[in-house]
This record gives sequence, structure tokens and C-alpha cells, in this order.
Amino acid sequence: MNKELNQYITTCVPLTDEQLIFLNGYFQKKIFKKKTFLLQQGEVCKFEAFILKGLVKTYFIDHNGFEVILTFACENWWVSDIISFHEQKPSKMYIELIEDSELLILTPIAKAAILNEIPSLERMFRLMVQRHLASYQDRLFGNIALSAEERYELFLHKYPNLPQRIPQHLIASYLGISAEFLSRIRKRKSKK
Amino acid sequence: MNKELNQYITTCVPLTDEQLIFLNGYFQKKIFKKKTFLLQQGEVCKFEAFILKGLVKTYFIDHNGFEVILTFACENWWVSDIISFHEQKPSKMYIELIEDSELLILTPIAKAAILNEIPSLERMFRLMVQRHLASYQDRLFGNIALSAEERYELFLHKYPNLPQRIPQHLIASYLGISAEFLSRIRKRKSKK
Repeated sequence: MNKELNQYITTCVPLTDEQLIFLNGYFQKKIFKKKTFLLQQGEVCKFEAFILKGLVKTYFIDHNGFEVILTFACENWWVSDIISFHEQKPSKMYIELIEDSELLILTPIAKAAILNEIPSLERMFRLMVQRHLASYQDRLFGNIALSAEERYELFLHKYPNLPQRIPQHLIASYLGISAEFLSRIRKRKSKK
Repeated sequence: MNKELNQYITTCVPLTDEQLIFLNGYFQKKIFKKKTFLLQQGEVCKFEAFILKGLVKTYFIDHNGFEVILTFACENWWVSDIISFHEQKPSKMYIELIEDSELLILTPIAKAAILNEIPSLERMFRLMVQRHLASYQDRLFGNIALSAEERYELFLHKYPNLPQRIPQHLIASYLGISAEFLSRIRKRKSKK
């Protein structure tokens, strides 16, 4: 049984030890090297992955061929293209590892099996989708209504432990600014 | 009992007539005039609303004070700021009626009561959140990776029956272009 996964699940929905043992059997633990692609544009997403260790980025490629980061995810987060996974249609996004990572993988068949056996898990998955929705909403709001400085503040608030782990050019890509401009914002902030 | 609501629910999850009667009792039917605000930035969202009749826009205000439309919603869609509703924290968005509308309103207390009585409804709400997530994902992808023409095509595909009902300047706001540019795109398209 996996302690982190069980902790995550039981904060969303109370389960018996028997149920936890049952569902743990449906997750496959896998280890990946950094820079591995879990998903590329045009592929159908075949996993929802719970991150035990590591760091992941999801991104689109813009019309100039540059990557635009949507979200970062690390320990105790889920990563997937939920829409592609559920509709089993080609994804528009890339999911790539920033660090060597250890993931618990849930396939569509495994998910159907555990939901069939433990319907109350619907709640956990609803909360997971909601968390993704909140991320996208923040992202859109940042793009539309906030200055680069404000977006950086929101990033620090949302990912308090990550700025040390993420290369500067990736943070800049997430904020939609150049690495030079990010460096100026950080300097101004450190002088305050 | 409301036929449209029951139809929507039973395509997501099978329920007995008794359960449908029970949950219909928790929705309040309300009629609103167009231009009514259901939600304004800074308010806590106190509803998830199923649209029986009418048309709604959700939007942010950008740093120049202009409205940027996130989504449109009409008959048989849900409208809410799901994140504000669930976390009971102030919303960043506006929800305003484009047409006179008839809505079935679910409050947080009512939702908790029906989920407590009929836990299998979690599935329906998970699917509802997923549909919102798909909308936001398309919106972000359009902003980042598509040309204005491609965004317009995606809009027509997503809302096939709406272009006749939505004023041009609102479609332009949704696409992130001027009304004049939208007019040029439509002319080019009609010549093809």
C-alpha cells in the first residue's frame, strides 16, 4: 500500500483498509527519467498519475513554435490531460518531466474498475477535476487581468516550494514573459 | 418535476422516480431579465444554475477595464463559478444574462443535502466540472496556439446554434479581436 496515496484519498473520502488495499492494487508504480514525455500533442492520454516524487510540466505549443507552460505539478498532485483521458480523443498538450519522477499510474480500465467497486471515489475524482479547473481559471485570469508582477506573485503563492526547483526560463514561460524580464521583476522584489 | 433537468441527470446517472422527485424539490426555479448580474467580481458564488431557457456570459475584466468573455452558456448547460461556489471565496468573474432567462438554482446547502441523500449524483457533478474544464482548456489553447480564424471555427463548432443569438461585439470579445476584424473574417468565410 502507498502511504501518500492513501493519505490523499482519505482526506477526500473515508475508506476502509480493505477498500484501500483493493484500490492500491490498481495503481502501477513507475519510475521515469527527467525529460521523458508522458504525453505529446495528438496522442490519446491513457493515464491519470499521482506524483510520489518529481516534477512535471504541462504545455501547449504556440503559433510561433514556442512552448507555453500551463501548469507545474509535483508531489501529491495528479497529472493528466483529463479531457483526453475521459473522452479518449487526441490531446492538444504535452506532459514532460522536469525531474526524475516516481508516479502511480491509473489507466482508464483500472479507473473504471475501482469506481465500479467503490462508487464513493467519485467524490475524490470530482475534487481532483475541480483542482485542475481552479488552476486553469487562475491561469486565464492571470493572462487576462494581471500584470507580469501580479502573475509572479500569484505563482509564488500557488507554488510556494517550487521556485527553487524550476529553471528560470520555465517560470518565465509560465508567466508569458522573457527570462530577462523575470530577472528584473525578481531584482525589484528583492529590493523591497 | 422538471423534464429537461431529469433528462440531463439521467444521462449521467440512473435514478429512480422517487430520487428524481426528491432532488427536484431542492432546485428553485427563477426568472431573470436580461442584463441581470448573477455574480460580480468580489462576491461569493452561491449557486450552480441549470439553464432552462436563456443565454448567459461569464467574463473577466482585463487590465484596461474591458470585458473578456470566457464562456457562453444556454439551455441544458450549467452556469456557476464552481471554484468560488465550492471554496466559498470571492469570485474573480462576472456572470451576466444576455437574454431573459429561466434558471433552476441549486444553493450550497441544497447541493450538500441531495449529495448526502443520493451519493451517486457525485458522478453527474464530476461530469459537469469536467465540461467546464474542457471549456477552459479550449479557451486557453485557442488563446495560445490558434489564429483568430481558427478560434472562430472552434467557436462555431462548440456553439453551433448560438451565433444567431449572440451580438457580434460579444463574439469578438470572446475571440479576443475587434468587431471589425470579426466582420472581415466572416466575409472571407462566406466567400469560400
